[in-house]
Amino acid sequence: MVKGAGVGRPRASGAAASRPDARQAVLDAAGELFTGAGYAATTTRAIAERAGLRQASLYYHFPAKEDILAALLAETVRPSLDLAARLVGASGPAAVRLWALAYADIGLLGGARHNLGALYLLPEVGSANLARFRAERADLKASYGRLVAAAGVAPEAVAIRTDLVFGLVESIAVVRRDDPELDVEAHVREGADGVVRLVGVEPSEELRAEAHTLLATLTG
Amino acid sequence: MVKGAGVGRPRASGAAASRPDARQAVLDAAGELFTGAGYAATTTRAIAERAGLRQASLYYHFPAKEDILAALLAETVRPSLDLAARLVGASGPAAVRLWALAYADIGLLGGARHNLGALYLLPEVGSANLARFRAERADLKASYGRLVAAAGVAPEAVAIRTDLVFGLVESIAVVRRDDPELDVEAHVREGADGVVRLVGVEPSEELRAEAHTLLATLTG
Repeated sequence: MVKGAGVGRPRASGAAASRPDARQAVLDAAGELFTGAGYAATTTRAIAERAGLRQASLYYHFPAKEDILAALLAETVRPSLDLAARLVGASGPAAVRLWALAYADIGLLGGARHNLGALYLLPEVGSANLARFRAERADLKASYGRLVAAAGVAPEAVAIRTDLVFGLVESIAVVRRDDPELDVEAHVREGADGVVRLVGVEPSEELRAEAHTLLATLTG
Repeated sequence: MVKGAGVGRPRASGAAASRPDARQAVLDAAGELFTGAGYAATTTRAIAERAGLRQASLYYHFPAKEDILAALLAETVRPSLDLAARLVGASGPAAVRLWALAYADIGLLGGARHNLGALYLLPEVGSANLARFRAERADLKASYGRLVAAAGVAPEAVAIRTDLVFGLVESIAVVRRDDPELDVEAHVREGADGVVRLVGVEPSEELRAEAHTLLATLTG
């Protein structure tokens, strides 16, 4: 899903036309190496080799290794950020909208080809090149916060409760690391249930069905 | 708290007597450097320098950098592992015992001098030198699982629910990284509340008071 854009689409031949594929090949190779061998242990040379490219082609798309990290991490928040904006603006019970956001977001983190959420704790995430990722992740967390508040959590408790909700969503990365064979769909459903339990709502079949309908409307 | 053992205690002079301090000095220096600059970016030479020791002294205690990581991570699970065994064997409502374990465990991870939980996602945690840490962390998680089951979660749901509970507990490391100035005590209390909410129990003042009494009995 993550690498879907453009795959299989017919292209004009020539160096310029191959560039979008080269960019995606770098991201795929880096995602595998960063989550496997580790970020620090992976050189841009190893990424270029795995991607079947010359290093010059890699540098054309990504001047620094941190730019590759930034592009990979952007993929882990942007789709959820778009959805979150629509869910915050949608009508309906806040717990339904919160369940829907958590379901989609845990699904993105848990179902992506590589376990990129495991990179969130890298010290490099604090560097200047990653400022945009940090801002987008903070925006996503703020959207969770608006839904947590709308679900009836007391104003003075919203900040910490949102930390817990966001922490539970992102914890799918640790679960995936510990058990690469896990049943992602079951974890996504139970994770979304857990998120609404954290705001004091016991999830029902009706709530889940309503959330799925809302997701189908907003993303269909 | 983590570095408390032996500090300020009078010692005999001489190289042999200084060894316990040297070991702790290495761990303090490594905790700071691993969580700051990053594990991969930190050399044993830098650790020895920061600790005010010769590299030979460092190698006497820790033959490899991974041995330092193993010793640091052991500190993050062993106290909770001991407590968990006592809580599993104690009487009283499971939700009270689960709240008590989460409260102590989040307190340990959230209140330790360095944010060592941020190292759990390092690829090196999968290596042979870290086998004992992995086993102890799995034991701790299994204790959470017994309390989750005892709290009345359906048998087929216990494994995933325990993943969520354990994920929420460990997520304090991400919260600390994002906000180094956080109110640890408030997060610990809210985190323990969140853990029992994940098993379907709304925490009351009575539950919290009972858990504190139990902790005082078991650890006093």
